[in-house]
Amino acid sequence: MSNYSEKPLIKHAKQLFAICRSLTGEGTRRTLSYFEEYHPEYIRLKFSTGTKVFDWEIPKEWNIKDAYLEHLDTGRRFAEFKKSNLHVVGYSAPVDAVMNLDELESRIYTQPDQPDWIPYVTSYYQEIWGFCIAENEKKNLPAGKYHVFIDSSLNEGNLELSHVLLRGKLRKEIFFSSYICHPSMANNELSGPIVLNAVLDYVKQVYPESKYSYRFVLLPETIGSISYLSLFANDMKQNVICGFNLSCVGDERAFSYVQSPEANTLADKALSTALKGRDNVKIYSYLERGSDERQYCSPGIDLPLCTFCRTKFGEYPEYHTSADDFSVVTENGLQGALSVLKLIIDAFETCLFPCCKFPCEPQLGKRGLYPNISQKSSNHPARARMDILAFSNGKNSIFDIAKLANLKLETVVHELKLLLNADLIVDSDDVNC
Amino acid sequence: MSNYSEKPLIKHAKQLFAICRSLTGEGTRRTLSYFEEYHPEYIRLKFSTGTKVFDWEIPKEWNIKDAYLEHLDTGRRFAEFKKSNLHVVGYSAPVDAVMNLDELESRIYTQPDQPDWIPYVTSYYQEIWGFCIAENEKKNLPAGKYHVFIDSSLNEGNLELSHVLLRGKLRKEIFFSSYICHPSMANNELSGPIVLNAVLDYVKQVYPESKYSYRFVLLPETIGSISYLSLFANDMKQNVICGFNLSCVGDERAFSYVQSPEANTLADKALSTALKGRDNVKIYSYLERGSDERQYCSPGIDLPLCTFCRTKFGEYPEYHTSADDFSVVTENGLQGALSVLKLIIDAFETCLFPCCKFPCEPQLGKRGLYPNISQKSSNHPARARMDILAFSNGKNSIFDIAKLANLKLETVVHELKLLLNADLIVDSDDVNC
Amino acid sequence: MSNYSEKPLIKHAKQLFAICRSLTGEGTRRTLSYFEEYHPEYIRLKFSTGTKVFDWEIPKEWNIKDAYLEHLDTGRRFAEFKKSNLHVVGYSAPVDAVMNLDELESRIYTQPDQPDWIPYVTSYYQEIWGFCIAENEKKNLPAGKYHVFIDSSLNEGNLELSHVLLRGKLRKEIFFSSYICHPSMANNELSGPIVLNAVLDYVKQVYPESKYSYRFVLLPETIGSISYLSLFANDMKQNVICGFNLSCVGDERAFSYVQSPEANTLADKALSTALKGRDNVKIYSYLERGSDERQYCSPGIDLPLCTFCRTKFGEYPEYHTSADDFSVVTENGLQGALSVLKLIIDAFETCLFPCCKFPCEPQLGKRGLYPNISQKSSNHPARARMDILAFSNGKNSIFDIAKLANLKLETVVHELKLLLNADLIVDSDDVNC
Repeated sequence: MSNYSEKPLIKHAKQLFAICRSLTGEGTRRTLSYFEEYHPEYIRLKFSTGTKVFDWEIPKEWNIKDAYLEHLDTGRRFAEFKKSNLHVVGYSAPVDAVMNLDELESRIYTQPDQPDWIPYVTSYYQEIWGFCIAENEKKNLPAGKYHVFIDSSLNEGNLELSHVLLRGKLRKEIFFSSYICHPSMANNELSGPIVLNAVLDYVKQVYPESKYSYRFVLLPETIGSISYLSLFANDMKQNVICGFNLSCVGDERAFSYVQSPEANTLADKALSTALKGRDNVKIYSYLERGSDERQYCSPGIDLPLCTFCRTKFGEYPEYHTSADDFSVVTENGLQGALSVLKLIIDAFETCLFPCCKFPCEPQLGKRGLYPNISQKSSNHPARARMDILAFSNGKNSIFDIAKLANLKLETVVHELKLLLNADLIVDSDDVNC
Repeated sequence: MSNYSEKPLIKHAKQLFAICRSLTGEGTRRTLSYFEEYHPEYIRLKFSTGTKVFDWEIPKEWNIKDAYLEHLDTGRRFAEFKKSNLHVVGYSAPVDAVMNLDELESRIYTQPDQPDWIPYVTSYYQEIWGFCIAENEKKNLPAGKYHVFIDSSLNEGNLELSHVLLRGKLRKEIFFSSYICHPSMANNELSGPIVLNAVLDYVKQVYPESKYSYRFVLLPETIGSISYLSLFANDMKQNVICGFNLSCVGDERAFSYVQSPEANTLADKALSTALKGRDNVKIYSYLERGSDERQYCSPGIDLPLCTFCRTKFGEYPEYHTSADDFSVVTENGLQGALSVLKLIIDAFETCLFPCCKFPCEPQLGKRGLYPNISQKSSNHPARARMDILAFSNGKNSIFDIAKLANLKLETVVHELKLLLNADLIVDSDDVNC
Repeated sequence: MSNYSEKPLIKHAKQLFAICRSLTGEGTRRTLSYFEEYHPEYIRLKFSTGTKVFDWEIPKEWNIKDAYLEHLDTGRRFAEFKKSNLHVVGYSAPVDAVMNLDELESRIYTQPDQPDWIPYVTSYYQEIWGFCIAENEKKNLPAGKYHVFIDSSLNEGNLELSHVLLRGKLRKEIFFSSYICHPSMANNELSGPIVLNAVLDYVKQVYPESKYSYRFVLLPETIGSISYLSLFANDMKQNVICGFNLSCVGDERAFSYVQSPEANTLADKALSTALKGRDNVKIYSYLERGSDERQYCSPGIDLPLCTFCRTKFGEYPEYHTSADDFSVVTENGLQGALSVLKLIIDAFETCLFPCCKFPCEPQLGKRGLYPNISQKSSNHPARARMDILAFSNGKNSIFDIAKLANLKLETVVHELKLLLNADLIVDSDDVNC
């Protein structure tokens, strides 16, 4: 198997796009398998139908082969699953019946304010069936009788998810999560797993002997993260120092994140400094949450985590419709998200809590890190270096320092590498200083 | 005796208006007795003249029967106590003499910038006598000799106050204080005791088995609260978690409060969230204090208390003059203040520190508290509920949650009742969660 | 010896101006001796060449007798050390050679954006030689050969500094530092030592039995403070509660200071309240640092110190040029800086942590500190007094109180003296209250 990152990310996305994913079922399994082939470190976990996870219960496994509405008079088919898996309400029960358009109408979901797009609708916990079509298509459905057909099944089975823990020198973990429960939509949510696996690849390639441990998990939203936490919350509460839930990370329109409840974790600080200076950065309070940060940051779990997005779920028009496709998600968009996460990993692995080894300023001049001749000027060449040292007290994180010194995170990473090479600082995560 | 709240509050106020109250004396006793008839739980406390209370000493008891200035030539009387008890400087020593207008003038107090109103003047701790009249009346006093007559007495006696402690399941107390030392002025200060007794009535009627304990006290300002604290400060410092001093709570012009010194107590939070969305809300810093919060929040006492007002003392023109009457104070005004305090009591009694019983989000759908079908929309019907749960960590108070979730306190009380009924939360004041 | 303060400060400055100071050498010694004559309490400390101080090493001692450039054809001299000691790059190695203007040019430093002024240039840690002249003079240097002459020496010797610790009743120290390493520039940096010695004089005259201990130190910048800290950092970390580095305190243009890294020390609070209401106050963040606060506030040292300036170094055009002379520095300017520091010392010595001796408000009226007759008015005569008492909890410093009560520091000092005389407060630095 070649490296995951040898292929453009958009190619991975296009390969997986057509699969019908949901909380459970074959499509989700195939999606997990795809990533596991590139990263054999993944471990698959299964939760069988009926298992209690906190206040919830694992639902039946849903599988679907085909579905459509066939107008009996003309033989014309509508809402064909084979054309778009969004045409079926997620978790629809099977049906094979003939009914009048009148009877059928209450089972047809549209998004009237976006009349050309098929909406994404689910009913996981109440057994119904239904179809989703564009409002304009619904208006033109011919009157008369229809063969209503959904060839689905709801049976005892498993909810599945995959995770990997790359152990570093320290037990402290950086955590990445994304979800694999959405059918054919590109940004929400193929982009999350696509980028998460590129991050995993980056850590493996660049930091094979990493300082921190890295945890990656791919799961169905809500019930998946709740299931996962029912097993690992205690471990994670002890070890996770920073976490990112990835969602809608494939477009080029913005960079954004949803703050943790108190907006002051390492994850908040990492994202706010890593995004500094980029175009169109939007920061959302925890009140704007909506993805698995709802579970990871819930009372009693309290992980230090933010949800990272390009354009946040709910904030772009194509969200949760058939228009969320590769006109929204691009290679540039995916790479932009990846570059932010790589920078954050570089920051962690360089020196999380820099601590100057000397009281007072060290003598930079004798190390070639400071000009020897002193004359006033507006532009001090070693100013960033001096500012970083001035805050390197072993308590400020690299992200705090970037903020205090008003520097780009890239600059701080670069300067800290110089200072480490000159043996002027240590990481207080390595040693008490 | 009927319930206090069966009568309009304004009727109580009008019944008590004419009484001449001061720090001590018959008028004050009669006022206390009036409320004690409705609430036999009150206990009367007496501090006899000369008793030391912290840095102070209980003054003599002051009583007054009559007073006037009689122009000898014409027999016309001015500054008649029987027309307004404001005509006499509070705590005036007795006098019965004849003197020229010239001699008399330094004993006559007016409010020159409000020339039609009688000002309210006192001299509790320096024995003088004096009269108060409208500036315009003073200008027209005929020249010549006057019979100057004040039939008052300053004798050994008692300073009296009444308090009640309604014990709840917890020793933690909510504290209400107001004062009964002002003669005939309606807002400052009949409104305070009038509303305080309605709050007492509310707790008795609605929460006969309350969770929290409730302390109510009616006393003369400054020396009264100092006397009270000289006995109860230690108890109160241990038990009072939230207190309100009520002053000027009878007009319809504004809602306001004076913050505690650090502006971060439960009382500050309760008022700021309970007033949210009301018209004309004004928040004053502790530098704007002026009532008994001066004692309750003083260094060494440090109770978590705010002074609650409609329009704050000193901020309305009629303040401390004869114009502070029932053109200022109305039933609507009194009921508006009462409604705020009832809402705060409801909040305390519903769930002060909500704590979700499950890690992760509970499954609201299976309890009918969340829609089963998921489709994007701008208006999520369970959003407030979800937001409240997201902050229900057993450490945020109901008031913190209202602020964090940007919700009206009424909404939070309502939703928490639903969540309690669904057995999804507990109050961490009841149990550690 | 007369008192230091009997002479105008500007006279001291003018007497010292011509001396050629540097990190080491005779000029610096003479400058220290000048102050030691007025203040025999000073102790001279010497660090010999080659001594290790933290990450640094004491350099050779530099002395200079003469220097110039002589145009051989005409005999005209340029860059004459005897006319301005700024003409020689600080720490220049000796040279006695003949060279063409072409060869010479790279050794001539100018400030092209300020073409009429000689710039101040040093090269302490790389042995070079060089001359500094005005850009306009450089342009007019005649072509041809020059006798290049610097009669300097770089030998084993000492770095010297002087310090004094005036012991008060408490070991807690107020710390003042300034530097004596600049040649003929008036604001940066004769003004600092000139004012520091006036502060020392003030403490000796006005507070011969001071409550706090006072430490004063005169040293060469950077290497001097590092040397000093290598001996005293532990003592100072234990005892210094407030420190001021004095730099550029002689002009009349502004009052300013550089905040400590977290901007919340007693020094920050003292300066922000002492400067309140003065004209043209500028506060700089620690990112704008540049003087010995760089060492005193560095990680591992962490003294609670600010650098106090009139116009901050680097913020006035004459800075580090020959134009920094007595057109910049005036008696008024020096006295203005001194008055701020005197006020701060008065605040410390009056009552640093006022604590009211009584729970509740004390009865000010019986002590003549409060009007006995109470009538409403917009201007309460005892308002400041009451506000100060309201925050006198033994934890707020006098500077906190000035800020909380929105009062000038002068007012707070004055009122606290009244309250101390009335035996109403104690300093919790004297006794636990």
